[in-house]
Amino acid sequence: MIGKLNHVGVATPSIEDSVRLYRDVLGATSIGEKFALPEQGVWVCFVNLPNSQIELIEPYGDASPLKGFLEKNPKGGQHHVCFEVADILVARDDMRAKGAAILGTGEPRIGAHGVPVIFVHPKDMGGVLVELMETPKEGHH
Amino acid sequence: MIGKLNHVGVATPSIEDSVRLYRDVLGATSIGEKFALPEQGVWVCFVNLPNSQIELIEPYGDASPLKGFLEKNPKGGQHHVCFEVADILVARDDMRAKGAAILGTGEPRIGAHGVPVIFVHPKDMGGVLVELMETPKEGHH
Repeated sequence: MIGKLNHVGVATPSIEDSVRLYRDVLGATSIGEKFALPEQGVWVCFVNLPNSQIELIEPYGDASPLKGFLEKNPKGGQHHVCFEVADILVARDDMRAKGAAILGTGEPRIGAHGVPVIFVHPKDMGGVLVELMETPKEGHH
Repeated sequence: MIGKLNHVGVATPSIEDSVRLYRDVLGATSIGEKFALPEQGVWVCFVNLPNSQIELIEPYGDASPLKGFLEKNPKGGQHHVCFEVADILVARDDMRAKGAAILGTGEPRIGAHGVPVIFVHPKDMGGVLVELMETPKEGHH
């Protein structure tokens, strides 16, 4: 079922600092603009690599789901892995049928790429927070 | 400098259990055989995705560097991110010149893909343990 490794989500207390790290230290040459996803409580910025992306995420607002993560990991760290799937509802129902817990209501939300996503609970994913996103159609990113 | 996101390293207390998770629950269709890297203290198994890989790693031997990680994260979890670089010695010297600490002696070791690798300290990488590996030449994986 899972297709491409779309991105690795990396939490950070400061996207600006992380952009400096990826650009000036690691030498990444394609980094997008920071933008907000208020309904998900995060600022987002993509570091584009030839085959995949690093998704830098920083808390947005007081209720950000990243706050607890950054309290435990003040410097930031790996937060989730995102795999593409052909159909998000088929994927969700398949995960549930196999006993994996979907976070929230289970209704897909529109993620940073403009396509529907769900998150699968790390307790059922070997300790990894797994995001599943519907493969963007031609023209999306 | 960094090129492709070669793989995400995922620590697990049991590669067999993780293979069942990636194969039977997430539906990955290409998973390699488990093999040992005794000098690095890990068992390794690659889950092949169309554009990248998940590297499952399990402790090998009593001195495995994964033991502490799994004590903190008994179910396993995201352990490191590996980026490809054109030349490992150039990359190492560049990292050092920019103030980033290389783990161990700093001498590259042969990693799971048969090419030299180094690890950069998470304190200098936004809390992420970063592996740099020399891009495999044609014919390698």
